[in-house]
Amino acid sequence: MADGDDDVPLILTWDDASSGLLEEDEMTCTLSDYWTVGPITGAAMEICSTVDNMTGLTHDRPVQTSSFCQEFASVDGAGNYDIVNNVVIPTPGAPDPRAQNSLRQSWEMNYQEAAIYLQEGENNDKFFTHPRSAHALSAYLFAHNHLFYVMELLTAVLLMLLSLSEAPAVPFLRLDVYIHATLELLALALVAFELGMKLRWLGFRTFIQHKRTMVKTCVLFTQFIEAIVVLVRQTSHLRVTRALRPIFLVDCRYCGAVRRHIIINLRQIFQSLPPFIDILLLLLFFMVIFAILGFCLFSANPSDPYFSTLENSIVSLFVLLTTANFPDVMMPAYSKNRWSCIFFIVYLSIELYFIMNLLLAVVFDTFNGVEKMKFKSLLLHKRSAIEHAFQLLVSRQRPDGVSLKQFDGLMRFYRPRMTARDRFLTFKALNYSGATMLSLQEFYKFYEVIGLKWKARRSGEYWFDDLPRTAFLIFKDGVSWTHVVPWSYIVFLTSSFDFSVTVFAFLGLIALAFDMEPFYFIVVLRPLQLLRLFKIKQRYRNVLDTMFELFPRMASLGLTLIIFYYSFAIVGMEFFAGVVYPNCCSNSTVADSYRQINVTIGNRTVLEEGYYYLNNFNNILSSFVTLFELTVVNNWYITMEGVTSETTHWTRLYFMTFYIVTMVVMTIIVAFILDAFVFRMNYSRKNREPLDDPEDEKGIVFETEVSQTEALQTLDLYKHTLGVTNLSSLQEMCVALERSGHSSLVFQGRRSRTKSDLSMKMYEEEIQEWYEEYSRTNLQPDEAFHRELDSPEANASNSIN
Amino acid sequence: MADGDDDVPLILTWDDASSGLLEEDEMTCTLSDYWTVGPITGAAMEICSTVDNMTGLTHDRPVQTSSFCQEFASVDGAGNYDIVNNVVIPTPGAPDPRAQNSLRQSWEMNYQEAAIYLQEGENNDKFFTHPRSAHALSAYLFAHNHLFYVMELLTAVLLMLLSLSEAPAVPFLRLDVYIHATLELLALALVAFELGMKLRWLGFRTFIQHKRTMVKTCVLFTQFIEAIVVLVRQTSHLRVTRALRPIFLVDCRYCGAVRRHIIINLRQIFQSLPPFIDILLLLLFFMVIFAILGFCLFSANPSDPYFSTLENSIVSLFVLLTTANFPDVMMPAYSKNRWSCIFFIVYLSIELYFIMNLLLAVVFDTFNGVEKMKFKSLLLHKRSAIEHAFQLLVSRQRPDGVSLKQFDGLMRFYRPRMTARDRFLTFKALNYSGATMLSLQEFYKFYEVIGLKWKARRSGEYWFDDLPRTAFLIFKDGVSWTHVVPWSYIVFLTSSFDFSVTVFAFLGLIALAFDMEPFYFIVVLRPLQLLRLFKIKQRYRNVLDTMFELFPRMASLGLTLIIFYYSFAIVGMEFFAGVVYPNCCSNSTVADSYRQINVTIGNRTVLEEGYYYLNNFNNILSSFVTLFELTVVNNWYITMEGVTSETTHWTRLYFMTFYIVTMVVMTIIVAFILDAFVFRMNYSRKNREPLDDPEDEKGIVFETEVSQTEALQTLDLYKHTLGVTNLSSLQEMCVALERSGHSSLVFQGRRSRTKSDLSMKMYEEEIQEWYEEYSRTNLQPDEAFHRELDSPEANASNSIN
Repeated sequence: MADGDDDVPLILTWDDASSGLLEEDEMTCTLSDYWTVGPITGAAMEICSTVDNMTGLTHDRPVQTSSFCQEFASVDGAGNYDIVNNVVIPTPGAPDPRAQNSLRQSWEMNYQEAAIYLQEGENNDKFFTHPRSAHALSAYLFAHNHLFYVMELLTAVLLMLLSLSEAPAVPFLRLDVYIHATLELLALALVAFELGMKLRWLGFRTFIQHKRTMVKTCVLFTQFIEAIVVLVRQTSHLRVTRALRPIFLVDCRYCGAVRRHIIINLRQIFQSLPPFIDILLLLLFFMVIFAILGFCLFSANPSDPYFSTLENSIVSLFVLLTTANFPDVMMPAYSKNRWSCIFFIVYLSIELYFIMNLLLAVVFDTFNGVEKMKFKSLLLHKRSAIEHAFQLLVSRQRPDGVSLKQFDGLMRFYRPRMTARDRFLTFKALNYSGATMLSLQEFYKFYEVIGLKWKARRSGEYWFDDLPRTAFLIFKDGVSWTHVVPWSYIVFLTSSFDFSVTVFAFLGLIALAFDMEPFYFIVVLRPLQLLRLFKIKQRYRNVLDTMFELFPRMASLGLTLIIFYYSFAIVGMEFFAGVVYPNCCSNSTVADSYRQINVTIGNRTVLEEGYYYLNNFNNILSSFVTLFELTVVNNWYITMEGVTSETTHWTRLYFMTFYIVTMVVMTIIVAFILDAFVFRMNYSRKNREPLDDPEDEKGIVFETEVSQTEALQTLDLYKHTLGVTNLSSLQEMCVALERSGHSSLVFQGRRSRTKSDLSMKMYEEEIQEWYEEYSRTNLQPDEAFHRELDSPEANASNSIN
Repeated sequence: MADGDDDVPLILTWDDASSGLLEEDEMTCTLSDYWTVGPITGAAMEICSTVDNMTGLTHDRPVQTSSFCQEFASVDGAGNYDIVNNVVIPTPGAPDPRAQNSLRQSWEMNYQEAAIYLQEGENNDKFFTHPRSAHALSAYLFAHNHLFYVMELLTAVLLMLLSLSEAPAVPFLRLDVYIHATLELLALALVAFELGMKLRWLGFRTFIQHKRTMVKTCVLFTQFIEAIVVLVRQTSHLRVTRALRPIFLVDCRYCGAVRRHIIINLRQIFQSLPPFIDILLLLLFFMVIFAILGFCLFSANPSDPYFSTLENSIVSLFVLLTTANFPDVMMPAYSKNRWSCIFFIVYLSIELYFIMNLLLAVVFDTFNGVEKMKFKSLLLHKRSAIEHAFQLLVSRQRPDGVSLKQFDGLMRFYRPRMTARDRFLTFKALNYSGATMLSLQEFYKFYEVIGLKWKARRSGEYWFDDLPRTAFLIFKDGVSWTHVVPWSYIVFLTSSFDFSVTVFAFLGLIALAFDMEPFYFIVVLRPLQLLRLFKIKQRYRNVLDTMFELFPRMASLGLTLIIFYYSFAIVGMEFFAGVVYPNCCSNSTVADSYRQINVTIGNRTVLEEGYYYLNNFNNILSSFVTLFELTVVNNWYITMEGVTSETTHWTRLYFMTFYIVTMVVMTIIVAFILDAFVFRMNYSRKNREPLDDPEDEKGIVFETEVSQTEALQTLDLYKHTLGVTNLSSLQEMCVALERSGHSSLVFQGRRSRTKSDLSMKMYEEEIQEWYEEYSRTNLQPDEAFHRELDSPEANASNSIN
């Protein structure tokens, strides 16, 4: 697997991670050969005693023992150790190899559990789902790897894609009932298997406490029965429950990852709902009042169909709220009496320009609050995870700190593909006090340093190191550009350009579908180069930065929208498939939009088409297009009235509900963009420096200085005590140090700035309050941990949701 | 005039204000008679010496002398006083009556100038327009009273209303060319007279430096010439310059007052423009790219009129940006190839859902920044005004403080209708240190206490004082209501109810115009009582509070909108009057909407009406309705295409410009509501207490305790030295004190909370920084004042715009 995959944590099984330990002395001879090349062998010899001292820590015992350890200990049956109350108590006697092996296993278990805690902290998994036994651990490890995640995602996507082939199907994708029902059963069986694994890992009691999982189980059960019924009857029945299929997608680990990165999600939408509904009631209240008034005023006019009955009156004003029937709705009354426009102007001013904006304001405000609360809860959850991990890593001899060896053990589980050098540098970055141990205060910074990419700082002497990149720059944009615009912008530019090319390649495919020459696109591509001009201006850079920062979150908002669309499309298809067709709806007020007649003007016969029959629910793709049109709102009432005239009046409920739902989502999208932009602006104002200051552009930078002595010590520590096979990274570091001729070398760790970093700086003061509040309301981490071991529920309530 | 008019400061002429002084001893006997009633006469006698001490201050001289004083002194020719460098220097000699009179006049001048400074601070008038001589003062006083303001407003409104009667006129308001041209000349002559007064007050040099005045003069000149031309030719020519008439309204003092209360105005809109235009360019850039692409893709389709030429392509995509032609614009292409919807979905996603929201974000952000800057500038301007006034009020003997006597002198000019008691209590409220003099620090609070309404605090003993109100409450809402809902809400409720009744009475007038029975309205009025239910919920209260807080500012935003409407309406009338009519526009794509034909279906003939010919520019009222329809955006392209087909393609420019302008204004309205709401929410969060906490609801409350001794002293001071005729308020206070049997009485001054108060609390920390920055960048107030006297420009540049 590529190295870039590192961000998604992958837990090795115990055997994988400890395999290196067994080949302890394998590399030693080759390494010694290597070291004789340099003049520093003497120094290496010199510090041997120190290393021995450090390796001596191996005999130290952990304060706490992993909850998985109990079984291992009993399996091992080591006579010299007693496990009493989860703590390994050494019985007196000489250190025999078996006892030492058992101690090592005990530590390895602790490393693994600490790594799991840290991952739970990162993923915002609640601790009450933490595996509690070796039995649960194996199921946990099975359910937490990419293969399993991919299977989960593919199953969910397959289930959703099935609606392309189920009746009413997209013509060229139609499948037999046998086939799609069998496929569905297969997919559902896979979901059942996944749930089975989760049950094994969580245990029955935790399983039924976990809401999302329970909902998923119920939906699975219903779908299973329905799929079997379809297979038996060999025809699809009214299956509205298919609208619940997105639940499988939402529960997916990969979507969870998307969800974690975004701050807005379904839950947030629901949290915005109560105030939203309050204002909605105010809106509807005024609507009804005006509907009654409108009915009183205009129903006497026979040429006014909009206010002929009270129902029409309410529907007309609801549609007017979306402005879709304005000014047509006013015209019959206006032509009779010019003053009647006042009614409509007052209505629109109150409802559209005032209350609808209040709606936006309420959502925006709730959104802001939720945003902050969510950041707080994530932050405290991470802190709690770090505390749990810390307790597992400290030893009895030194209960206040984590040594490099223990940190390294943790990192081997937490980031299996990280090199030994980077693990060491990460430790150094955390260890700003310079002591041999990491204190809890230092360890709190864990998540800030974990994503750093390390490299030696360019000292200025080796200017030629950078040559290839500079040459590339000259070739690409000319040197003058690099002076005006920071380097990152040129990277961005290229990537933006690539993005455009991708988009247009996609549009090119459409063109091919139209059987057109793709020549046009070359013409169209050229003006895009003008986009570079926009880069020069500070404001555009801010805008474009915001745009690119927003993309991942927008994508997940898009996912939310697609999930809504999917559910509404299924319901629409079940009820309205095949309802509208050319020349339908002749009794409705919108008949014209569906009419398709040959009109003879002079000697030419032209087909006059009302195209709205195309906006139907005949298959899932058409439904999506129709729903998009409804989202855009304009003329949506034509589709509504057309479908209504062919079904019942209750159909309007579907369309109106959809309107309100998309209004909420759209409002949140607006709030989201507003928030991101205003946040960014406030941030740059607060820090009195523009965000795109070249220095700032480098993102978060940590520096740490490594001396030759230290490097050699570390190498020896790794060699002698851990013996991990791949030490080349550390060796290279030592060689680089030696070659530089300096006694020490500075390494820089870099990562891009995330929204979380901005928030950290933004809420600086509040964060301190939160921490205090957190340490007041929670027990001491030590006690909390013990309590948690006794009762999972207690901790579940502790961890802020 | 009513007492409620007090908020609008009115400067009395010197003669009015000092008239009281001449009747110094008039009230004395009656007052003595009065005082013999109470048992406190002895006490009154006792403190005579103190009073004498206080009155002794009359002989003290001001540190600075009013700039108007020079001439008066020379007119007066008082031999005992020399005016050297603006300071009255007493020549040795016994205090003769003439000298004392001159000193008093000198003080009065200072009071008046200080009052003028404070008014300029309140009105945000720049100090370089401050009158500099007695000559200028008389013009200033003439141009600063309600009569003049009313004339100014009426003239401006008359000028604007003239377009109702000028061709193309509203039918029933049509006037002869003679009449309306004469009326116009008359109004313009009045404006010229007003400008003449301003010229006299400002002096020629300042006059031509004042931008707004210069623009007004130029417009006036053009209008004058045009009006004369109309009168000579006896027919109206193409008078697009009439679109500039709102300038007279904008320059009006009363509109200035509205403008002062609102934070958003024309200038703010223009300040939002540059970033707005940047994003607009990005928007147009993408539009053009997509237009070219759309032309390439869809022009081959003969049944697709939207992309037949590149021009059509651009127009279609511009209209699509407003969603007004969606999904129609997609339908021809969609019916040929279903995948073509991707083009439109991508376009709308980028343009409508992303860039348009960015536009909103940019305006919102700029708006926020401008809002704060404006608050800062107003605050510092007020501070500067206070410093100027303070310098005029301190005497030579006590250069660090303002005594009650001087404060009272100021107040007689600043708030001529304020009672003596209230002037005294205001002084007490400022004087929180309890010293006899107001320090500058205390005087800085001037604007915070000036609007207070004073009354004695209910001590709880006189519960029956409140009886009438309570009885009213029981009658109105039942006692239980008063427990649940704060008192202010019931007041609000009633007023909200009144407001509704007013609105519906207005709608009732429309009904009468329809010749309908007004009976319906009784039915409609009833459900409005339900609005009370909304009061119970906290969130609605917040919303409704925000609504009512917003009303004055919304009104002035509305004024801004009307000004835009007016200008566009004039241009529209000049170019498009009479252009559309039934069955016009037969060559355009929107011919159907203008068609008016008799259709025979079966045996019935029905008039099928396309009503859009009603959306015309035939007179100013129709134009306003048409422009409102364009503001709502839906189907606006029908009007645009109709008019375009009867004129030239350039007509679209008018409609597109209007769309963009209203988009800016509407965006600002949204930003405005959002801002007010979010500000309120943040404020309540910051203060951890809801705004509608009953205690808080009372608004700003100042308390001051007045002892019997103090009251009598003050009364004597007023009686003996100032002799202002109307002392009944002070006497009543003394009587109340005596009756209560307590040695002192607490008075409460109250006013409602303004946005400025909220801002003061919100920006608490920043305000201190601003003050420091201000005192650093400005000279010491003393020096600044002297410098200002020497060079008006210096100060003009000092005062932040």
